Amino acid sequence: MNPWQIVREGYNPAEAADNGNRFLIGNGFMGIRGTLEEYRLENQVAINLAGVYDRAKNQTWREPVNAPNGLYASLENVGNIISHTQALDIRYGIHTRETMYTHAFLKISRFASMAEPNVIYQQIIVEPKNSPITLVCGIDADVWDINGPHLMDMHSEGGEVLKVSATTYEQNIPISTSETCNKPHDELRTMGHSIYRVFHIKEPFVLDRVITINAAPVFSTYESGLKPHKNTWETLWKNSQVKIIGDENAQLSLNYSMYHLHCIAPRHGDNVSIAARGLSGQVYKGAVFWDTEIFLMPFFTLTEPALARKLIHYRIHGLAGAYAKAKEYGFDGAFFPWESQDGGTEGCTDFNIVDVFTNRPVRTFFRDKQIHISGDMVYALCQYMDWTGDEKLWQDGGRTLTEACAKFYLSRAYQRVHRDTLEFTDVVGPDEYHERVDNNAFTNRMAAYTLEKAGMKHTVRKPRINNGIIEQFDGYFALEDISLDIVRSRLKHPKEYWGTQSGVAFATQIIKQADVMALVNLFPSEFSDEDVKKNWLYYEPRTEHGSSLSACMYALGACRFGRADLAYPFFLKSARADLDGGGKSWAGNVYIGGTHPAAAGGAYMIATQGFGGLRLNGNQPQLNPCLPESITALTFPFMFQGKPMEAHITREKHSIIS
Amino acid sequence: MNPWQIVREGYNPAEAADNGNRFLIGNGFMGIRGTLEEYRLENQVAINLAGVYDRAKNQTWREPVNAPNGLYASLENVGNIISHTQALDIRYGIHTRETMYTHAFLKISRFASMAEPNVIYQQIIVEPKNSPITLVCGIDADVWDINGPHLMDMHSEGGEVLKVSATTYEQNIPISTSETCNKPHDELRTMGHSIYRVFHIKEPFVLDRVITINAAPVFSTYESGLKPHKNTWETLWKNSQVKIIGDENAQLSLNYSMYHLHCIAPRHGDNVSIAARGLSGQVYKGAVFWDTEIFLMPFFTLTEPALARKLIHYRIHGLAGAYAKAKEYGFDGAFFPWESQDGGTEGCTDFNIVDVFTNRPVRTFFRDKQIHISGDMVYALCQYMDWTGDEKLWQDGGRTLTEACAKFYLSRAYQRVHRDTLEFTDVVGPDEYHERVDNNAFTNRMAAYTLEKAGMKHTVRKPRINNGIIEQFDGYFALEDISLDIVRSRLKHPKEYWGTQSGVAFATQIIKQADVMALVNLFPSEFSDEDVKKNWLYYEPRTEHGSSLSACMYALGACRFGRADLAYPFFLKSARADLDGGGKSWAGNVYIGGTHPAAAGGAYMIATQGFGGLRLNGNQPQLNPCLPESITALTFPFMFQGKPMEAHITREKHSIIS
Repeated sequence: MNPWQIVREGYNPAEAADNGNRFLIGNGFMGIRGTLEEYRLENQVAINLAGVYDRAKNQTWREPVNAPNGLYASLENVGNIISHTQALDIRYGIHTRETMYTHAFLKISRFASMAEPNVIYQQIIVEPKNSPITLVCGIDADVWDINGPHLMDMHSEGGEVLKVSATTYEQNIPISTSETCNKPHDELRTMGHSIYRVFHIKEPFVLDRVITINAAPVFSTYESGLKPHKNTWETLWKNSQVKIIGDENAQLSLNYSMYHLHCIAPRHGDNVSIAARGLSGQVYKGAVFWDTEIFLMPFFTLTEPALARKLIHYRIHGLAGAYAKAKEYGFDGAFFPWESQDGGTEGCTDFNIVDVFTNRPVRTFFRDKQIHISGDMVYALCQYMDWTGDEKLWQDGGRTLTEACAKFYLSRAYQRVHRDTLEFTDVVGPDEYHERVDNNAFTNRMAAYTLEKAGMKHTVRKPRINNGIIEQFDGYFALEDISLDIVRSRLKHPKEYWGTQSGVAFATQIIKQADVMALVNLFPSEFSDEDVKKNWLYYEPRTEHGSSLSACMYALGACRFGRADLAYPFFLKSARADLDGGGKSWAGNVYIGGTHPAAAGGAYMIATQGFGGLRLNGNQPQLNPCLPESITALTFPFMFQGKPMEAHITREKHSIIS
Repeated sequence: MNPWQIVREGYNPAEAADNGNRFLIGNGFMGIRGTLEEYRLENQVAINLAGVYDRAKNQTWREPVNAPNGLYASLENVGNIISHTQALDIRYGIHTRETMYTHAFLKISRFASMAEPNVIYQQIIVEPKNSPITLVCGIDADVWDINGPHLMDMHSEGGEVLKVSATTYEQNIPISTSETCNKPHDELRTMGHSIYRVFHIKEPFVLDRVITINAAPVFSTYESGLKPHKNTWETLWKNSQVKIIGDENAQLSLNYSMYHLHCIAPRHGDNVSIAARGLSGQVYKGAVFWDTEIFLMPFFTLTEPALARKLIHYRIHGLAGAYAKAKEYGFDGAFFPWESQDGGTEGCTDFNIVDVFTNRPVRTFFRDKQIHISGDMVYALCQYMDWTGDEKLWQDGGRTLTEACAKFYLSRAYQRVHRDTLEFTDVVGPDEYHERVDNNAFTNRMAAYTLEKAGMKHTVRKPRINNGIIEQFDGYFALEDISLDIVRSRLKHPKEYWGTQSGVAFATQIIKQADVMALVNLFPSEFSDEDVKKNWLYYEPRTEHGSSLSACMYALGACRFGRADLAYPFFLKSARADLDGGGKSWAGNVYIGGTHPAAAGGAYMIATQGFGGLRLNGNQPQLNPCLPESITALTFPFMFQGKPMEAHITREKHSIIS
C-alpha cells in the first residue's frame, strides 16, 4: 500500500459528488473539487475561492464564490470508455485521471501550486489509436452555484490568452479566470461566455496549460511549475508528518487528513480562516464554525504556529461582528457568530433546517443560543498561547477578546433569587439535537473558563453528577432512555432531521455528537481517567455520531482510559471521513455535503493527543501514550514555545526530543 | 323564536358527534350526550360521570368513566324514517326526539333530574300505524371509551329491575346502571352484558323508565320526577337569567350557554370542579384547566357563590398535587397542574400533540412551562373574595394557597447579574402557539399579582411597550409579521397543529388566542380604554382564535373602547360555540371534541362585564354599559357580598338595584 496515493478505478458519474470531495486539491487560496475535466456544473465542478464572499440575487446571506472553470477539457469522437482511473498523490497534491477510450488514451494531471497561490497547472496527454481525435479545452463559464448565480457582467476573450471575467453580484468583486498553453490551437470555440481551444490530434499529444485565477496570465510549463510546488509540500510535511509504523492503512488515512488540512490552510490573505467544509464548495455559506478553534487549531498550533496565530487573529479582527451580534440580542461584550463570514459577521440564519414533510423552513436555535461559541474562542486563544508562548497575542487583541467574551457571558447569565451562582439557561450545546436546554455542562464550563481568564470571580453552576456520570444538561437524565436503534426505527423519512421539537431524538437521551465527552477532553486535568471511562461508557451508546466532530472526542476519551481498541475505529472514521464518504449529506431538505476538515483535524488530535497522549503538564509537554495494537511506533514533530521538538513513541518507551 | 328551545330537523347520523354536544343534558352529577336512544358506542353515546376518574389498562393517566347506557331504546320492524326532529328544552333540560317511521311514530323524552342527582327519567311513546311494532329498551353495556375499556368484571341482572354493574380497572370503583319501568315487558333479551326489555306493541303505548346510576333503583313515573326537577331549574334561572330585550337570537344563545353551565355545575360531591369539556366525554382526560378559574368563576361567583367557593376549595384541597408538581421540577411552593384531575393531581403529559405527518407524539410544554396557572388560582380566589366578601376563605386555605403560589414564583424566577427585577423565562403564555418564551406579559403580571397578594415585595419585569402596544413576550415584535391568511396557506395538512417548533405560527406573530387581550381584561384598572383599543387593533388581526377562550376576551376588550359592534360577533361565537359546532375537533392527530364550558362562561362575562360593563370600582359594583345596537335593554340578577342585586340597563340609563 502506498500511503501517499488515493486511487479509484472505474468510471461512475453517480460518484461525482463524493469524488469531488475525495479528490479535492487546493493551496489555501483556492480549492478545486476532484471532478473530471469533462464535467460541468451539474456534477458540482468548482474552483472555490478562499475568503471571497458575496450575495447572489435575492439572497439574504453571503456565500463563497466559485470561479469559471479553466480546467475544462474533453475529447470528441473517442468512442466509449474502456477503462478509467482517478488518482490523487496526497504527498504533492497532484490529481490525475487516466481514461482508455475506444479510440484514444487520455491522461490529465493537475495541481494547484503551493508556491504560486493563484496558479493551477494542467497537463493533458492524448494518444489517438486509429482515428483523429478532437480535444476541446478552455474555460467553462457556467459556474456551479447552490443558491443562484454570483457572477454578473461576464465576458470572455480568446487568443493567446483565454479569459473569462466577471464581477460579483453584490459587492462587484472582480473575478477572472485566465488560461495559457504551450501549443497553438486549431480553432477557438465559444458557447455563451465559455471559451475553448480546439485541437485536432492525430499523433500522441502533450499540452501544458496554466490557469490563473484573479491574476495576470502566466506563461510556463507543467514541469517548471511542479518543482517549487513540490518543494513547498516537502517543507509542510517535514514540519507536520506523523509517522506511523506497523499500520499502513492508519498511515494513509492520517496522511490523507493532513493533506486536506494543508490544502485549505489560509496561508494567503489576511483576516481569513477555514470554512467548515474547507474549500469544497458553498455549503454552510462558506462559514467558519467552532470547528476551526477546537478541532483544527491543535494541528496548526503544533505544526505551523504562524498560521494558528492567523486563525486567532481572524477572530480578533472579527470582534466587531461579535459585538454587533451581542448587541442585537441585548447583551454586552462579544457574542461570536455561529457561522462566521468575511469580517466576522454572522452568516447563520434562524432557519437551518427544512422539514422533509412540509418542505417548510424550521426555526432552529443554533444562531442565537449556541453560546459556547464565545468561550471556544477564548479556549483556542489560551491553548495557543500556552503551546507557543506567544504572550504578545494577549496584548495584540487576545485580552480584549477574552474580556469581551466574559462580558457577554456575564450579561447572558441568570441567577436564582438570593443565589450567587450563574446559570446559563436556554442554550444549545454541542449536541444540537437538544435545543434550548439549561446549564449544558460544556457551555457552563466554557463560560466559567472565559470568566476565569478575564479575571472575573463568579461561580457558574456545576453539572449534576450521578454515580460519576455528568448530566449533559438539567433534566437530561429524565429524558426517555432508549436505544439508538429504536430511535432510528421511529424515523419516517430517510432525510429526516433528528433534532427540533418534532424530531426523534429531542425527547430522548440520544445525542447527536460528543458533548460531555468534549468537555472531559478539553479539560483533561479536571477529570480522572475513571471519570472519563464512566462517561464514555454511558454516553457513547447514546450518541448517533451525526456530526463529523463526534468520533474524535470519543477516540480521545477512550485513550484516556487505556482502550486504544475502542479509540481505533473512531480514529479511522475521523481520518477517512472524506475518503470513505457516506457521511450525512442532508439536514432535512438542506444539502450539507462537502469535505470535513474538523474530522481531519480530529484525526490529527487522536494520533498526537490520543495515541501519543501529548499534553501540557504544567508548562511542559508530556506523553501518555496509548498505542493501538496495530501501531508499533509513532513519531511526530511539533513546535513548543518556538522550539521544534519530536515525539518518539514505541510500545516500550517514549520520549520528546528537542 | 322560542329562546328556550333548540330544534334540529332531519335524521343525519353524520351529525351524531356534534349533536351529542349540542343536545347534552346534565345535572352536575352526570352528563348525558345528546345522542339518539338507538345509538351505540360508535356514535359516542355516553353517560359521563362527574369526578369519577380511573385508568384504563395500559394507560398512564386517569380519565372520566362512562356508565352503561340505561337509556337505550329502539324499534324493530318500523320501516324507514319519514321525518325526524331532535329538540332540547333548555329551560328545564328536557331532551326530546320525535321520529315518524313508515310503520310507527316514536317520541322519547328524557331529563337528568336536577332534584335527584343519580336519576334519569325517560318516557317512550310508540304509536304503531298498521302493523305490530317491537320496542327493545334497556341497558347497553358496550360503553364508549376513547382510550380503552375502564369497566371490568361486568355483570348484568334482569327482572323487575335491570342492572348492569362493574368496577373500574385501576381503583375498583363500583359503577352501576339500574333501570325500572312502569309496564311489564314481554320478554328479556341479553347480548353480552347488555340487557333489554322487549315489548310487542299493537296499540299506542307509553312507557316510563327510571334509570339510576350508582344508586338503588327508583320506582316512579316520568310526571312525578318532572315536578321537583322543574322547580330546581326555576330557582337556578331566577338567580341567574340575563334578560335581553330586542335580540331573540342573543337571548337564546346566552340562555343556551348558561344552560350548559348549570348542567355541569358540580353541586354534588366534594372536592370536584368542572372539566374543560364539561360532562361531554373523556377528552382532555376530564381534567380541570384554568378555564374554570378565569372563564367560569365569574358566572358562579355572581349567581351561585356557594358553588364558586366549592370550585376554589377544589384547588385548596388540591394543594398537595401542586406541591408535588413544584417539587418534581425542583421548585418551592405550589405549581398547580395544567390539567387537574381528582385530588388535584397533574393529568397533563409531556406529549400533547400527535404530529400528523409522522404520527409521533410531539414534546409540548403545556405541563411544565405554562406557569401562569398558579397565578390564575390566586386571581380567582381574590376576585371571589372581593365580590362575595367571603373573607373567611382566606383563613380556610386561601392564604395558604396564595403564599404557596408566591413561593413557587419566587423559586421559578431569575434575575440578571446585579439586577433585582424578577424575570420569568422559558414559559408558555395563554397563546400556546409560542412555547418557551421569556417574560410573557400575562404570565409576569399573574406572578406579580400573586407576589403582591402574598405580601412579598418584588419587582417583576414589565412588558416592553411600543407605541402603546404591549409586547406579548420578549422578542415577539421581531417575529415575522404576516397575515393570518398567508400563515394558513402554509398548512400542508388539514389537521396540522399550528404551534410547536415546526408549526406555521411558531416563527410568526400569529397567535392562537387572546393573550395580551386577556391581560388587559383581567386587570381593567391598569389599562386605559385607549390602551385596550390600541392593543385590540394590533392583536385581533393576528389572532387565529384557535381556542374557545379567545372570543370572550376580544369581545370584552371591544366593549372597553365602545365598539359593541366589534364585540357582538365574538359574543355570538362564544355563546353559540356548542350550538353551531364547527370548532376544532383535532389538535394534530389528537381528538379534542366536546362541549366548551369556557366559551359559555365567556358569553356570560361578555353579557354582564362587557355589554353591562359590570365591575368593581373600589368596593362597589358599577356599570359601564356598551350595548350592541340590537339590544335595547339588559337585566340580570347577581350577588354582591351576600346581597342579591339586579342590574338594569337600557340605552338611556342604567342602575343597580339592591
